[in-house]
Amino acid sequence: MDISNLSINTIRTLAIDAVQKANSGHPGAPMGLAPLGYFLFHDVLNFNPKNPKWLNRDRFVLSGGHGSMLLYSLLHLSGYDLSLEDIKNFRRWGSKTPGHPERGETDGVEVTTGPLGQGFSNAVGMALAFEFMAFKFNKPGFNIFDHRVYAICGDGDLMEGISHEAASFAGNKKLSRLVVFYDDNGISIDGSTSLAFTDDTEKRFLAYGWNVYKVYDVNNLEDLRLVLHEVKSSDRPSLVITKSHIGFGSPNKQDTAKVHGSPLGDEEIKLTKQNLGWHYTEPFTVPEEVREHFASAVNEKIKIYDEWTKLFAEYSEKYPEDAAFLNKVINGEPLGKFTTDESLFPDLNEKLASRASSQKVINTLPDAFPTLLGGSADLTESNLTDFKGLPWFSASERGGRNIHYGVREIGMGGVMNGIAAYGGVIPFGGTFLVFTDYMRPTMRMAAMQKLHVIYVITHDSIGLGEDGPTHQPIEQLMSLRLIPGLTVIRPADSHETVYAWKAALENTSGPTTLVLSRQGLPVITDKSTPASGVLRGAYTVRECAGTPDVILIGTGSELLLAVKAAGKLSESGKKVRVVSMPSWELFEKQSAEYKESILPAEVKNRVAIEAGVPLGWEKYTGDNGTVIGINKFGASAPAAVIFEKYGLTVEAVVAAAG
Amino acid sequence: MDISNLSINTIRTLAIDAVQKANSGHPGAPMGLAPLGYFLFHDVLNFNPKNPKWLNRDRFVLSGGHGSMLLYSLLHLSGYDLSLEDIKNFRRWGSKTPGHPERGETDGVEVTTGPLGQGFSNAVGMALAFEFMAFKFNKPGFNIFDHRVYAICGDGDLMEGISHEAASFAGNKKLSRLVVFYDDNGISIDGSTSLAFTDDTEKRFLAYGWNVYKVYDVNNLEDLRLVLHEVKSSDRPSLVITKSHIGFGSPNKQDTAKVHGSPLGDEEIKLTKQNLGWHYTEPFTVPEEVREHFASAVNEKIKIYDEWTKLFAEYSEKYPEDAAFLNKVINGEPLGKFTTDESLFPDLNEKLASRASSQKVINTLPDAFPTLLGGSADLTESNLTDFKGLPWFSASERGGRNIHYGVREIGMGGVMNGIAAYGGVIPFGGTFLVFTDYMRPTMRMAAMQKLHVIYVITHDSIGLGEDGPTHQPIEQLMSLRLIPGLTVIRPADSHETVYAWKAALENTSGPTTLVLSRQGLPVITDKSTPASGVLRGAYTVRECAGTPDVILIGTGSELLLAVKAAGKLSESGKKVRVVSMPSWELFEKQSAEYKESILPAEVKNRVAIEAGVPLGWEKYTGDNGTVIGINKFGASAPAAVIFEKYGLTVEAVVAAAG
Repeated sequence: MDISNLSINTIRTLAIDAVQKANSGHPGAPMGLAPLGYFLFHDVLNFNPKNPKWLNRDRFVLSGGHGSMLLYSLLHLSGYDLSLEDIKNFRRWGSKTPGHPERGETDGVEVTTGPLGQGFSNAVGMALAFEFMAFKFNKPGFNIFDHRVYAICGDGDLMEGISHEAASFAGNKKLSRLVVFYDDNGISIDGSTSLAFTDDTEKRFLAYGWNVYKVYDVNNLEDLRLVLHEVKSSDRPSLVITKSHIGFGSPNKQDTAKVHGSPLGDEEIKLTKQNLGWHYTEPFTVPEEVREHFASAVNEKIKIYDEWTKLFAEYSEKYPEDAAFLNKVINGEPLGKFTTDESLFPDLNEKLASRASSQKVINTLPDAFPTLLGGSADLTESNLTDFKGLPWFSASERGGRNIHYGVREIGMGGVMNGIAAYGGVIPFGGTFLVFTDYMRPTMRMAAMQKLHVIYVITHDSIGLGEDGPTHQPIEQLMSLRLIPGLTVIRPADSHETVYAWKAALENTSGPTTLVLSRQGLPVITDKSTPASGVLRGAYTVRECAGTPDVILIGTGSELLLAVKAAGKLSESGKKVRVVSMPSWELFEKQSAEYKESILPAEVKNRVAIEAGVPLGWEKYTGDNGTVIGINKFGASAPAAVIFEKYGLTVEAVVAAAG
Repeated sequence: MDISNLSINTIRTLAIDAVQKANSGHPGAPMGLAPLGYFLFHDVLNFNPKNPKWLNRDRFVLSGGHGSMLLYSLLHLSGYDLSLEDIKNFRRWGSKTPGHPERGETDGVEVTTGPLGQGFSNAVGMALAFEFMAFKFNKPGFNIFDHRVYAICGDGDLMEGISHEAASFAGNKKLSRLVVFYDDNGISIDGSTSLAFTDDTEKRFLAYGWNVYKVYDVNNLEDLRLVLHEVKSSDRPSLVITKSHIGFGSPNKQDTAKVHGSPLGDEEIKLTKQNLGWHYTEPFTVPEEVREHFASAVNEKIKIYDEWTKLFAEYSEKYPEDAAFLNKVINGEPLGKFTTDESLFPDLNEKLASRASSQKVINTLPDAFPTLLGGSADLTESNLTDFKGLPWFSASERGGRNIHYGVREIGMGGVMNGIAAYGGVIPFGGTFLVFTDYMRPTMRMAAMQKLHVIYVITHDSIGLGEDGPTHQPIEQLMSLRLIPGLTVIRPADSHETVYAWKAALENTSGPTTLVLSRQGLPVITDKSTPASGVLRGAYTVRECAGTPDVILIGTGSELLLAVKAAGKLSESGKKVRVVSMPSWELFEKQSAEYKESILPAEVKNRVAIEAGVPLGWEKYTGDNGTVIGINKFGASAPAAVIFEKYGLTVEAVVAAAG
């Protein structure tokens, strides 16, 4: 067996053995794709296993994350910090080798994959971030950014709608550094893919404006080489349709669904290894010559890395400002500084929708955050997300700061995750609150990966009026609060909106969702105290003398109802505190003392008001409190009418405060 | 002006005037598409406005629901119960003419549309339901079902991923009665569609296995006629790419994004009407000759309806059983009867995953519910959703009771909504709980439309083990409870699973989600009392003498922890009640007395345990209670290890019960 095949079989057998030992997992894809994995990691990708975050590394995304053992085998052989012991601990508690690859857990894993189609969209985002960073930082003779983004996806990825959105987007933006291999093995979990999936994938991707190539047998390394040569001169994203055999080498299970998601079993492993000509009896064997074969390839890669390092040193002398920024990226430092611009704070008479306040904030940011990339899912004029006067990102404008994502919420979410994972760029994107439902699977992945993504979400309640129940969010606000690690902020006026943006930009270790109104909101707070209280999640905006008889809690547009009700209640002698609670997550991070100071345990009479489902508010209102919310879908009518009909009124708050 | 053009301009001006009067809405699409709307409603569609639910009507879906005034104008002119007064009340509280078309509010509106792409997928579902019903009920000489499903969609629908999933699915199933017109007007909200969307849509749909036709000017009725003639002999779903001009006739706004979502304004209306050769000065004018023109067309349609009625009378004599079933459909009666089969109830020693119990129930249903259609998003072997021994629906097997939906959760959700909206068929479909995030936008629409759809959702917690955080639902269970009108049931053992299915099948006026375990669950309840308590949402499964010291509340797999903890606590002399709470929604429907009997106000010490986010449980545990849940993402490890590490243990429940 030549060294290539021995290496490929090493990858296969590591996957087989790890899945068997874990007694769960997916051997089929790694066995089928081992030649492609070998080809990419040995022959193609530039990286340095000792500096896995190198700015100019080629990115690799395994979109079908269930094939994780392919990636783990490759990372191990390529000298990443992933030992054979780690591989033996596949799918065990606390291991570096979880069931699906997880960003942050394992060097060399660029993004967490598993929910199908998302890795594909992340790769698109990385290819976009590449273009932006290359445009911004490369200089004549200094191609600091000069690499590709490679991904492998399967039929499941391509059936998912997110692949359509991301692929169509990538074609429109001509992201030519993107190379996706489609593992065309003809098998899905239910059996032959033809049972549900008979697309002509080549034609489909040509329709998106991609170039499409074919490899008729993934085991033919020469074919892979020829195709890759062509891909490198493509002016468009490339899809390489690669025929493979799921469970390659297994005499009884190859090309069947049985080998997708279960261990082969001892007997079949024996037969498979025999069939592959694998003569080692010990499981988890890595032949010494395979180690050397990879080590020598990695040595070459490190030479390329070293050259880049020299180049970057020269660059740093010549372009110190640019280099300083890139050093921030390398060191994981904040990419900008938010300064509360005085001009942002309107006087008390100004009434402004929080989406409009947000727009004002956004337009103070382009210089302070030079790699902040805005956009919207075809609702720019509604979300008010654009940097005025700055260019739009396109095939001919790689420095564009605004992105037309199209009517593609989940695609936008996946692309933003890829942009954020790339490093050095902060993406934000807009849509309506009700349509976060479409984007939600990607918001979860942003939270899981602690990615700095900002969602600018407008039209946040029945307050959007006549468009009716299909467009009025009811359950969305609370449902976003349920996602672990996602910070949700719903500001009540312009001042709060400024601090909401501050919180979003400073929260570099996770996504933030800004929830903004369509309708105008009068100013309730002032610029220093209390609006800065947004940063603590909840704070007092109207105080009374002594222990309150009642605490009214509001968020967003409903804070005004609380404030007005407090006015009426005070007139009748009640002692009323009004608490603005723009962010549950930020509030929960505060000390017990702070929380007690805002919501003292002794004050049991509490009323929360929010134009969304009440479920969940009991946490803050308690056994003796009242929640005024909405328990049904919205209606088509002018906003004021709906608020009235749905009982979100000052009178209702007053009555509840009893 | 000939009568066709006068009619078309009537449609246009009604839309213009209604949007202007409402001072909000979308005039552009109705103005552009009026010729197509006229052509379909006047020349093509078979329907009876006085019997809008006629079984054999052609279905029409306006996927871009924002163009609702097109549909309302057409329904008005076609003699549906929609007056000129209703049109003048466009977008007003309580009107029959809400901002987006709403099923159930307006005769002739087949489905609620607005969230883009969903109407498209609903049309696919209707075309599938047609094939199934035609196969099942048509007899030689009796084509009781013999119609088409027409839809109009726009670029937004086609950008959305759901259109990819549904179109690919429709192509695979060769749903040849489906005819979709793509309103190719070149404009999206952000401006020219080319800014974000440069797909070759013809090529894309050919890749899905559709036939594609082109109409180069929607104003050319002759072209529409020719294309429709061809479409009628298509053996595949048909896409008709129809060039149109958004805001047709407006001298200053035609072909611009400005006319998409705002009133034209008085001045532009004047110019537009002039330009269209519209000489009536009163808004909302319907010329008498237009009324007559439509009335005479509708008369012809009613003749066809009358012929069908005769045919159905003959059919009823010849095939009384089939007719009896169809009469149930016509009368809105239940389509089957759930009888709790004794064989379903295992003894106390049997341990079965609730997905496996569900499978047993499913396989007792095919005869009792002859139009129940099962399926899964490529997880049949995991969701255990298949009717054993029954055929799979395909191009060559129209009577198939099982559906391979492919890896298409949102597509499946949209298709199921269309199947349910078609009438006479009950769809259920499976995926993992974590992937309901993908399907969620369609679950919301099922709830809004009160559609009888059943979601069979498995792998309901960290209990799925090694696949790790990407596959382990944490926030999904609670997030589904937030959707108004969606019933969520998470049974704790086999007996409860039987009653969960009973509830789902008997809940004909809304969707139900069954949340089922991957792992085995021992039997806790018994078959009569208390498991039938599932139907009341929560009930006592372990009682103590006298007033309880503590109430333990559990759902699904965690009920066992509560029961075990109760055992330990009882040993130490505590009086413990254990409440199983499989469904919050069903519990909330009970009387105050019943609720108090299960969770007496006087018992303040309460512990809830559930392997998901705790947020929300405070509602039932109260100020002095404890919630044991999970506030972070899952982990890759064997299930037992994760439960232990995450603190979901008997010991934790005992400790919390204090």
